[in-house]
Amino acid sequence: VAREETLEVPEGVAPPTIEQRFLGRVVSVTPAGDGRYAAIIDYPVEALREGPAQLLNVLYGNISLLGGVRLIDVALPADRPVVAGLSGPRHGIGGIRAAAQAREGRALVCVAIKPMGLTADELARLAERLVRSGVDLVKDDHGLTDQGPAPFALRLGRVSEAVARANAHAGTSGVYVPNITAGPAETLARAREAVRAGCRGVLVAPSLAGVGVLGELARMEPAPFVMAHPTHAPCAPEGREGIAPEVLLGTLWRAAGADAVIFPNAGGRFDWPWACCREIHRRLRRPTEGIHPAFPVPGGGIDAGRVAFWAARYGPDTIFLVGGSLLAHTDLDAAARAVVAAVRLAHTGTA
Amino acid sequence: VAREETLEVPEGVAPPTIEQRFLGRVVSVTPAGDGRYAAIIDYPVEALREGPAQLLNVLYGNISLLGGVRLIDVALPADRPVVAGLSGPRHGIGGIRAAAQAREGRALVCVAIKPMGLTADELARLAERLVRSGVDLVKDDHGLTDQGPAPFALRLGRVSEAVARANAHAGTSGVYVPNITAGPAETLARAREAVRAGCRGVLVAPSLAGVGVLGELARMEPAPFVMAHPTHAPCAPEGREGIAPEVLLGTLWRAAGADAVIFPNAGGRFDWPWACCREIHRRLRRPTEGIHPAFPVPGGGIDAGRVAFWAARYGPDTIFLVGGSLLAHTDLDAAARAVVAAVRLAHTGTA
Repeated sequence: VAREETLEVPEGVAPPTIEQRFLGRVVSVTPAGDGRYAAIIDYPVEALREGPAQLLNVLYGNISLLGGVRLIDVALPADRPVVAGLSGPRHGIGGIRAAAQAREGRALVCVAIKPMGLTADELARLAERLVRSGVDLVKDDHGLTDQGPAPFALRLGRVSEAVARANAHAGTSGVYVPNITAGPAETLARAREAVRAGCRGVLVAPSLAGVGVLGELARMEPAPFVMAHPTHAPCAPEGREGIAPEVLLGTLWRAAGADAVIFPNAGGRFDWPWACCREIHRRLRRPTEGIHPAFPVPGGGIDAGRVAFWAARYGPDTIFLVGGSLLAHTDLDAAARAVVAAVRLAHTGTA
Repeated sequence: VAREETLEVPEGVAPPTIEQRFLGRVVSVTPAGDGRYAAIIDYPVEALREGPAQLLNVLYGNISLLGGVRLIDVALPADRPVVAGLSGPRHGIGGIRAAAQAREGRALVCVAIKPMGLTADELARLAERLVRSGVDLVKDDHGLTDQGPAPFALRLGRVSEAVARANAHAGTSGVYVPNITAGPAETLARAREAVRAGCRGVLVAPSLAGVGVLGELARMEPAPFVMAHPTHAPCAPEGREGIAPEVLLGTLWRAAGADAVIFPNAGGRFDWPWACCREIHRRLRRPTEGIHPAFPVPGGGIDAGRVAFWAARYGPDTIFLVGGSLLAHTDLDAAARAVVAAVRLAHTGTA
């Protein structure tokens, strides 16, 4: 693994100076039970230089093609700027709070507008009702791209207008976060369109759009905040291959530039272990020299009726993503208001 | 899975017309042994519309976050243009043959220049010797990005010049294929730089740069041919999760726009099953209405001494990627000439 991910030539081909400078160094190999072994490999920073794509290329590149090899942890160099392009979130928790005018000490509520198949106007009406009910962030479902009934440009315009209208009417500060995931040029073009339309944030799936999109969006001027969606990420919990979820979503995506990271909540449709969710939540927020903390966004299984329970467990530096269970309520407005109230009550003592 | 990958709302939330038009439909569920089940799901083309990123988002999106779910096959609609952005390779096998002046009926030889740590001039000298020895394609190792000793722009210039010099001197038609994998804007910028420098092809890793890069490169004017590298692809053979290699590398990357696809050869460092390699090789080339065939590029375990064996097995519509084992020879020029001769002899009866 250490050789495959760096020099990729048999021993003896590279001059000794290069072997010394660029070859991954095996620090230890320890039996880990069930016939598996835990290896610690020290990769030279010079091999990682370039940004998030090359970082993943070294940490979990060709070895994704091998059975039974999993990346279970990573420690990034404390002197992070040496690994170019890993400068972390542009906005982070503080920036998203400012965009949504959500003061410290309270969690935020995010609702996805969906399903695909609704027209741009139908999605806009949904967004308007949610914002008027006090929802902080209204995001596109990650399956909304450029489909017929709600093509990107039309959806962006209609939903942005509806959210602005709702804010003006209700005195709220709801933020619309459109999904920009597509091919590379198209993704960046949509980000620019979104900013022009007044959006403060965008949603992107790094495993589909390419992980380097996080850093490039963070360097845009002006830069929207970036909410990262885990679709297609190679991190099924307890898989034999792939990347441990807390490593990819908690450590690497934050370092790469995500301001907020969505992950499947424990007990939901994906049934991720609570310990894993808690660790993602911790890694996104933990003090790390020189980079902002990112907002953890548990979702995919936050029932509207259980949001108070999760608010107590995760604490205030969290965005709760409530989706399908809310949309299933017959009185959407009342249900949304109840979720918003429950989340505020949990941390501030007042709804 | 069918609901998660399309509507992503509980039953009853979406109006019946939308359930009918956009929901994945479970065709069958069959026991597949070991407590597993094989399910066939029919996804509506309207849900896939947009391009390769959305195609993967529906075929293997959120379900990558579930343990034990694997995508084992896909049948794309015969009327492919309805799935926008799946127009296949721009150049395909014929285009790469034309670029390298390699007539039909013979296989091609590709050698990776590496390792990282060599300077741009050292890599250029290596490329020059390989081209003078008759190697058709000289590609960057996928670990060469923008590192200190051979930053992209300098490497591109030096290696391009060296290959042009070798061609002029030896009457060959060697092609340099630089690695452009980075963040989205940077990847496309490097592709344009490569074209300006006279490169006929580029190397990109779709799982790092984002799969949509294949379609966007295919639509560039002028468009380089695109060689796709599998690093970080979620396709360990026989994994419990992920995507079967022949599906991602053989069917989807070709449909998305790859002109040539690298995959780990049987018996090599990755030890992929021969049946899997043969199937990737077949899928890349099989006649498919409206799209070009793509070049299969077995590598990662093609020993210079065994290339004749593999040439006989794979046949002439193949690019043989020979790397480390060639660079390990004390007389690189003689070893490269021997590989080129062996491959030509295998199909044309003359070296």
